[in-house]
Amino acid sequence: MSETTVISIDAMGGDHGPSVVVPGLAIAAEALAGRAVRFLLHGDEDRLAAELARVPSLRAICEVRHAERVVAMDEKPAQALRRGKGTSLWNAIEAIREGQADAAVSAGNTGALMAMSKLILRMAADLDRPAIVAGWPTLRGVSTVLDVGANIECDAERLVDFAIMGEAFHRAVHRVERPTVGLLNVGSEDQKGHEEVREAHRLLRDGGLDIDYRGFVEGDDIGKGAVDVVVTDGFTGNIALKTAEGTARFISTQMRAAFMSSWLSKLGALVASGALKTLRARLDPSSLNGAPLLGLNGAVVKSHGGADAKGFANAVKVAADLAQSNFNSEIHRNLQQVTAVLGRAREAAEAAGGEPESAK
Amino acid sequence: MSETTVISIDAMGGDHGPSVVVPGLAIAAEALAGRAVRFLLHGDEDRLAAELARVPSLRAICEVRHAERVVAMDEKPAQALRRGKGTSLWNAIEAIREGQADAAVSAGNTGALMAMSKLILRMAADLDRPAIVAGWPTLRGVSTVLDVGANIECDAERLVDFAIMGEAFHRAVHRVERPTVGLLNVGSEDQKGHEEVREAHRLLRDGGLDIDYRGFVEGDDIGKGAVDVVVTDGFTGNIALKTAEGTARFISTQMRAAFMSSWLSKLGALVASGALKTLRARLDPSSLNGAPLLGLNGAVVKSHGGADAKGFANAVKVAADLAQSNFNSEIHRNLQQVTAVLGRAREAAEAAGGEPESAK
Repeated sequence: MSETTVISIDAMGGDHGPSVVVPGLAIAAEALAGRAVRFLLHGDEDRLAAELARVPSLRAICEVRHAERVVAMDEKPAQALRRGKGTSLWNAIEAIREGQADAAVSAGNTGALMAMSKLILRMAADLDRPAIVAGWPTLRGVSTVLDVGANIECDAERLVDFAIMGEAFHRAVHRVERPTVGLLNVGSEDQKGHEEVREAHRLLRDGGLDIDYRGFVEGDDIGKGAVDVVVTDGFTGNIALKTAEGTARFISTQMRAAFMSSWLSKLGALVASGALKTLRARLDPSSLNGAPLLGLNGAVVKSHGGADAKGFANAVKVAADLAQSNFNSEIHRNLQQVTAVLGRAREAAEAAGGEPESAK
Repeated sequence: MSETTVISIDAMGGDHGPSVVVPGLAIAAEALAGRAVRFLLHGDEDRLAAELARVPSLRAICEVRHAERVVAMDEKPAQALRRGKGTSLWNAIEAIREGQADAAVSAGNTGALMAMSKLILRMAADLDRPAIVAGWPTLRGVSTVLDVGANIECDAERLVDFAIMGEAFHRAVHRVERPTVGLLNVGSEDQKGHEEVREAHRLLRDGGLDIDYRGFVEGDDIGKGAVDVVVTDGFTGNIALKTAEGTARFISTQMRAAFMSSWLSKLGALVASGALKTLRARLDPSSLNGAPLLGLNGAVVKSHGGADAKGFANAVKVAADLAQSNFNSEIHRNLQQVTAVLGRAREAAEAAGGEPESAK
C-alpha cells in the first residue's frame, strides 16, 4: 500500500445508492483535504460514471470497479453470502483482504455486511460477530457505546473484549489519549446485575488491563458523558440506543407541536430560529453516522441505510480515522494480551477463593 | 372494609418526608374529590400533626398512626427487614395485610419497600420480587413498561406473567378496555433475540391467552406508543428507562443552552414562553410518578424518593385507581389461568416437534 489511504466504497448500498454515496464522497473529500485519501468505488460502472460526471473534483481521487450485482437491503445474510461474490458489497470488503484498500464503507444490508466481513476478513477477537459501535451525543461531547446489536448474548470475556476494542477505537477516532471505560448496569454497587456483568466488572477492575476502567454506569450516565466508552451486550445496547432515538423523536415532536400551538409561539420560534437551527444541528444524527464493526482483521464501517450525503460523508471520515491511526495494531496487541491477563485474573481469583458470587 | 377506599401512606418516606407527603395528599384529595377516599398516615405523630395543621381540608379524611422509627433511604434491604417492625414503611404495608387499607404508597427506600412487601403480603406470581412498572410518555399517550428493575434475570414464563399483570394494570389505571401488548426485542422477526424472549413470544402468540399480543417491539417503538404495554426483563427495562431519562435531560439542557445563546433567542423564548411551559408540563416526570409493584397480594405503589407534592399526589392517584378497580382479582384469575395455559402451550409445542430454536 502507498502512503495514500485507500477507502473501499460499496457505492450501491443504502436506500439511495450512488445518488447519495457520490455526493457524500464529495463532502468527505473536502473534510479530509490535506490527508491523502483515495476512494475505490464498487458498483454499476455507468451509474457511477454519471454521478461522478457531476462532481469533477472527485474524479482525480476516485477509481471505479465495476460490479454486476447488488445485495438487496432485505436479503437474508445466509442467502447474501451464498450468492455474494461479485456484488458491490463483497468486492468492497474483498479489497481490504487483497491489500488494495485500508478500510471499507457500506450503507447496505447490515446482516450481509457483517456476515461477509466475517467470512472474508475473519475475526480477530473471539466473538460471534463483529461488535457494532454507536457514537452517542452527551453533555460532554461524544461517547462510544458497544455492542449495539450484533452479539445478543455475551459472556464476561466478550464484554472485556468490547472494553478493549472500544477504548482503542475511541482513542483513534475521538483523539482522547486515555479514554475512560464503564460497564452498563442497573446500579453502581458490585453486587448489582447478572453474573456476566459482575464477572466482567471483576476482570476489568482486578485483571491488570491497561485501561482506565471506572466501574458500573447506569442508563442515564450515557447522556451525561460519565465515561468515554460504555460497554454492554448487543441486546441491551441495541435497546438502549433505539430507546434513546425514540425519546429524541418524541421530544422533538412535542417541541414542534408546542411551537405550532399559537401565533405567539410561532412568532417566538421565528425570533429564536437561529437558536433552534443550532439545536437541530447539535441533535442531527448524521453528524454521528458511521458505525465501525469491531473485532475484524480490517476496518469496516457501516453507514445508516437512510443516511443523507452528509451522514455518508461522516461514515467515510470514521473509516479514514481508523485507517490512519494505529488502531488495528493496538487492538491486535491488546486482544493478544487479554488472553494472558484473563488467565492471570482467573488464577488470582481462584487463589483468593473468589468463586463467582451467585445472583442476588 | 367500608365502601370508602383507604390508602395507607408511609408519611416519613422520601427525600423530604411529611413536608412533601402531606401537601401531596392535599393535591391528591382534590383530584380524587367525588371518590370516597381516606388516608391512613404512618409516621411521627408530632411532625404529622404540625403538617396537617396547615391543611385543614385534609383533617377529616386523614388518620395518623404513630410510628417510632423510619427506614433510612440508604439502608440495605436485609437490614431494613431485620429491624423493620414498627417503622412507618412496615406499618403502611402491614395495614393492607390486616385489612385496614386497600393500597399503600411510599416514597421511601425501594429495596426495603420491595423486601417488606414481599414478606408481609407475599407474592401472588412466581417471581423473585414484585415487578416495577413505569408509565412512559408516548406520542399516543402513556404506555406501561415492566419490569423496570426488580427481576434482573427472567425466563419466558416470568415475561408472560409480566404481560398478564401489565395488561390488567393498564386497563385499571389508564381505562383502556383491551390494551395491546408487545415484547421488547432487537428486531421484529421471530428468530431475533435470545432464547427467553423467543420462547415468551411463542407462548404469548400461540398460548391462547386472552390478551391482545402484537409481537416484538423495538426500543424506538416505546416512544411511538406502538403498544400499550411493553414487556421486558428488569435489567433491560431499567437500562431503557434510565437511558430515556438521560436522553430527555440531554435534550432539555441543549434546548436551554440554545435559547440562552443570544439576546434574540432569549427574546424568542420569552415570546414563546406559553408554548415552552406547555412543553415542560408534557415532559414533566411528576405527572407520571407512581410505580406500582406488581405480583403481590395487595396494591403497593412506589413514589420517586425525590418527587415533589404534585408527583406524590400522582402516586396516590395510581394507588386509588388500583384499589377501586377489579385489578387484583383480575390478575389473580389470570395468573391462575396462565399455569394451565402454559402447560397446554408446552404440550402443543412438543406435539408439533417445536423444540426451542437455537440462537442464530
